[in-house]
Order: sequence, then structure tokens, then C-alpha cells
Amino acid sequence: MILVLGHVTARPEHFDEVLKLSHQHVERSRAEPGCIAHAVHRDTENPLRLVFVEKWSDMAALQAHFRVPASREFGRALATMASEPPELELFDANVISAGG
Amino acid sequence: MILVLGHVTARPEHFDEVLKLSHQHVERSRAEPGCIAHAVHRDTENPLRLVFVEKWSDMAALQAHFRVPASREFGRALATMASEPPELELFDANVISAGG
Repeated sequence: MILVLGHVTARPEHFDEVLKLSHQHVERSRAEPGCIAHAVHRDTENPLRLVFVEKWSDMAALQAHFRVPASREFGRALATMASEPPELELFDANVISAGG
Repeated sequence: MILVLGHVTARPEHFDEVLKLSHQHVERSRAEPGCIAHAVHRDTENPLRLVFVEKWSDMAALQAHFRVPASREFGRALATMASEPPELELFDANVISAGG
């Protein structure tokens, strides 16, 4: 599985728009092949900072996701509304355990 | 690296207490050996749901973290204030790439 952690800190005047576009991106991504999970969260220590947690079946699926024109537009839009450049971390991840 | 994704959904009347204890747990955990990152976020689709993202240097460090009495007390306290059992996913994770 490929795990993606992404974050962006919005400029205050753009936060609502960044959140709206992020939700649209999440919904769109969940429908793409190989997307296991995709969600966006708000940092409790910095409410302008959004954190994406994504699970993809494999690198090919993630690369296809990056090539979707709407993904690229989303990335470009975020960059214009962010107070610092958005960042992405990609991990090759194997489940050790899951549960309560 | 070991990546941990945890989540808990608080009962509404306990949300403030769950968030306070979560922040204390994050601060305590960041000071433990082998903790690379530890943070708590609020799901933008369900504001009662908190999501933890943690990075640990290795499994030994994470196991030591689980044995810290305050970690165990935190887990027990969360369980009593949650609307569904808290869950943890552990991943053996290798960085593929990181950056903007």
C-alpha cells in the first residue's frame, strides 16, 4: 500500500475556499481506481493547517491520480492560497496491525 | 519508520475533555525516545472524530511508548468517552519521497 500524508497551511482569507476545494478533491479521489482511503483533517494546533491522509493500492494508482487534470488543478489552486508551499510525503507502507 | 494512524470519535459531551487529554498525550509523546512526529487532527467531515498521525523510529520505541503508564491511562480514558472503540493502525513505512 502507498500512504500519502499531505499538508497545506491556508492564508486566513482563503481558508474557506481551500477547505471547499479539498473536500471536492477528497470526493473525486475516493472514486478513482486504487484509492483505499482519502480524507482531510484540520490540525488542532493550527486551524489554518489541513492534513490529508490517503491510502492507495499501489504506486501506479497514485501516479494515475497525480495525472488526473483535476488533481493538478487542485494542487495549483492550493499553492496560490497557501501561506507556505503544500507538501506531500509518500510512503511504501505495510500493515503491521490494525484494530482497537 | 513506524507510522501510526489512530482515531477516536468522542461522545459530544466529552469532546472538550478528549481533545484536552489528546493534546497532553501528544506533548508527552513528542518527548519520548524515538518519537519523530505526533499530532492530533480533527476530521473535517465529522468534528467529533480525532485522527492521530504518529511517526516512530522503530517498533521498539513504539512498544516502549505503549508501555508508558500515562499512554495506557490515556487509552483507557479515551475508551470511556468515545462513541465507538478507538482504533489504531500500525504500518512499517519507508519514505518514497517527501517535499513540495
